[in-house]
Amino acid sequence: MDQFEFMSPTKFILQKDADLLCGREVKKYSENVLFVHYGDKYMYDSGLHARITKALADAGVACFELPGVQPNPRVELVREGIELCRKERIGCVLAVGGGSVIDTAKAVAIGVKYDGDVWDFYSRKAVPAEALPIGTVMTLPATGSEGSNGSVLKNTETGESADTMADCLRPSFTLMNPELTLTIPKRQTVFGIVDMFSHVLERYFSSSRETYLTDYMCEGVMKSILVNARALMKDLKDYNARAELMWTAVVAHNGLLAAGRNQDWATHTIGAQLSAQYNAVHGATLSVLFPNWAAYVYKENIPRFVQFANRVFDVDIDLYDQEKTALEGIRKLREFFESLGAPSVLNEIGVESDEKFTKMAQDACRFGSIGGLRTLNAADVEAIYRMAQS
Amino acid sequence: MDQFEFMSPTKFILQKDADLLCGREVKKYSENVLFVHYGDKYMYDSGLHARITKALADAGVACFELPGVQPNPRVELVREGIELCRKERIGCVLAVGGGSVIDTAKAVAIGVKYDGDVWDFYSRKAVPAEALPIGTVMTLPATGSEGSNGSVLKNTETGESADTMADCLRPSFTLMNPELTLTIPKRQTVFGIVDMFSHVLERYFSSSRETYLTDYMCEGVMKSILVNARALMKDLKDYNARAELMWTAVVAHNGLLAAGRNQDWATHTIGAQLSAQYNAVHGATLSVLFPNWAAYVYKENIPRFVQFANRVFDVDIDLYDQEKTALEGIRKLREFFESLGAPSVLNEIGVESDEKFTKMAQDACRFGSIGGLRTLNAADVEAIYRMAQS
Repeated sequence: MDQFEFMSPTKFILQKDADLLCGREVKKYSENVLFVHYGDKYMYDSGLHARITKALADAGVACFELPGVQPNPRVELVREGIELCRKERIGCVLAVGGGSVIDTAKAVAIGVKYDGDVWDFYSRKAVPAEALPIGTVMTLPATGSEGSNGSVLKNTETGESADTMADCLRPSFTLMNPELTLTIPKRQTVFGIVDMFSHVLERYFSSSRETYLTDYMCEGVMKSILVNARALMKDLKDYNARAELMWTAVVAHNGLLAAGRNQDWATHTIGAQLSAQYNAVHGATLSVLFPNWAAYVYKENIPRFVQFANRVFDVDIDLYDQEKTALEGIRKLREFFESLGAPSVLNEIGVESDEKFTKMAQDACRFGSIGGLRTLNAADVEAIYRMAQS
Repeated sequence: MDQFEFMSPTKFILQKDADLLCGREVKKYSENVLFVHYGDKYMYDSGLHARITKALADAGVACFELPGVQPNPRVELVREGIELCRKERIGCVLAVGGGSVIDTAKAVAIGVKYDGDVWDFYSRKAVPAEALPIGTVMTLPATGSEGSNGSVLKNTETGESADTMADCLRPSFTLMNPELTLTIPKRQTVFGIVDMFSHVLERYFSSSRETYLTDYMCEGVMKSILVNARALMKDLKDYNARAELMWTAVVAHNGLLAAGRNQDWATHTIGAQLSAQYNAVHGATLSVLFPNWAAYVYKENIPRFVQFANRVFDVDIDLYDQEKTALEGIRKLREFFESLGAPSVLNEIGVESDEKFTKMAQDACRFGSIGGLRTLNAADVEAIYRMAQS
């Protein structure tokens, strides 16, 4: 077990109509708020926009809006939000949506408190030191940004996707109304499940030893995702499974499951290049890449892959051929993603040729080699892209 | 899965010499501090007292001391602490010790901010609304008070033990140096293990349904306690097991493992009377009572006791005789506590006769019936005391 520091100060409320508490919660921090959202048809037609604005008005909170967040959210919109906050002296940011909306809101919250350009945090020129209070109303459980210390943005000028991390990015409150997630279409539901499962995998595949508590918790979280994912595949409107997964997204990514050990995160970094170059959906990049990453690196730590196979997927351990057990676990992982209908090869997510592999691999390693379980350089990353072609 | 609200804002730092960070951390809140501790021989001879006072002095924090905390901490000392804080205008409370010290510090922190007598919170005449910032340096992992929202005190005038709970009781920071725990004698080590295991049991034995995530996490935490407890029984100076258990005490009791369901807590309430009447050690009351409580209530929810037997203690499920499996799990629980050398019958903890059973049972139910899995009245509680005689 390694040393660690862990803080997750967010107040989480999960209940029917939790979103209606946004006025009361914002009011604890500010008389006005920047309401960040997708601004899409669903936001208005579903009545959610009206629910939020009414709840804010009822609490006496003045509301300014920043609609127009897109998947793989852009820094340009963040800059608009920062300007609006400064002009109107806004004291709190409320994200209503999924990870892209929350990451946008977080970027606004740190940008307002910073003299330079907000992209400095993402290009690692600066580290966020303070932020406006951030609240979230989660509608698309997946990235766990509603409880995490990170934010991912895309810079359309350079095509880069990059992240920044600091405890001041953790939301002050997160409101989870599972009913808001009952109508999420199957495709997004699946990518959300893959994303949260991957957040556990990135922490589980560690080279640290003797981390029994964190191991068992990771395995438990993964097993519960299997149970709830299967329930949702039978009935997308299963309230209990929706509620469980809503909370799972938080637990998978607030940092608890990394306590006391190093983490991997190579797959996220490799996948981010697919999002940047091909605008591929985050969860889709993970379902394609994770089994291939695993197949590429498993020899580095066979006991860990054997434990994964045995404890998460109930594969009996063949003590005479442990490698076989490890590979069976990887096969089960791929099978799980496929059972959800998630893609497993690159051409399913719009990557038809290998023309960008070299550049993407170099970009993935632009801050140095990646990965905690096995260190990967650009040549390794390119090899993984090639494996993912079939 | 039920609705829930969960917040655990404490910053946790686990590392060698973490205690030396107390000056830096206190300084974020206040220029002076009330340093609460046992004031026993160990505190001075071990050098811990000197380490803490030097760390505070080095950070420029003025230090006032409240030594003299005893196990089953007394409200009288709390009142002294409150007076001292008011007189010296102290802005932060630092607990250095185990649960009794932390619970004392918490009581001081809420008492300072309250006009009436601090016991009002424990007699449920008032609910704590605000507190001085609380920091802890954990030396005796067990109660989890270093991450929890609760405090337990004893009122020597009435003989009552009682608790109070509110989010303002959660520490701002908790510093965990596993090296400080290497010399904990076996007896206290064991009671700490029983206590943290029991905190999971109280949450695990729930009547709520379909809480897969929380179930799996509870089971994982219990399994990791089994692993680390066995390691410590072989070598009390096993640093890794000490570090794991130090963090486990927090996870077991910060509320995470109750997310989305009701809890039981009858056993703690029944045991508190043994502490009040016989000054029995908290962990010892739990090791005696938990298997007896389980044997008394298991028929209320056989599937849950079967799941416990199977997933925590690897008992194969006899589907033709599920009650047998449930009982085997309870036997394994008793066996685990006994394997640590923890007591299993009342006369081992100084309770030689049944003379106080009726009164203790009535006192245990003074706020109404108790227990979430099965509701117990005073007659049930008395029956459990009788079962625990042999």
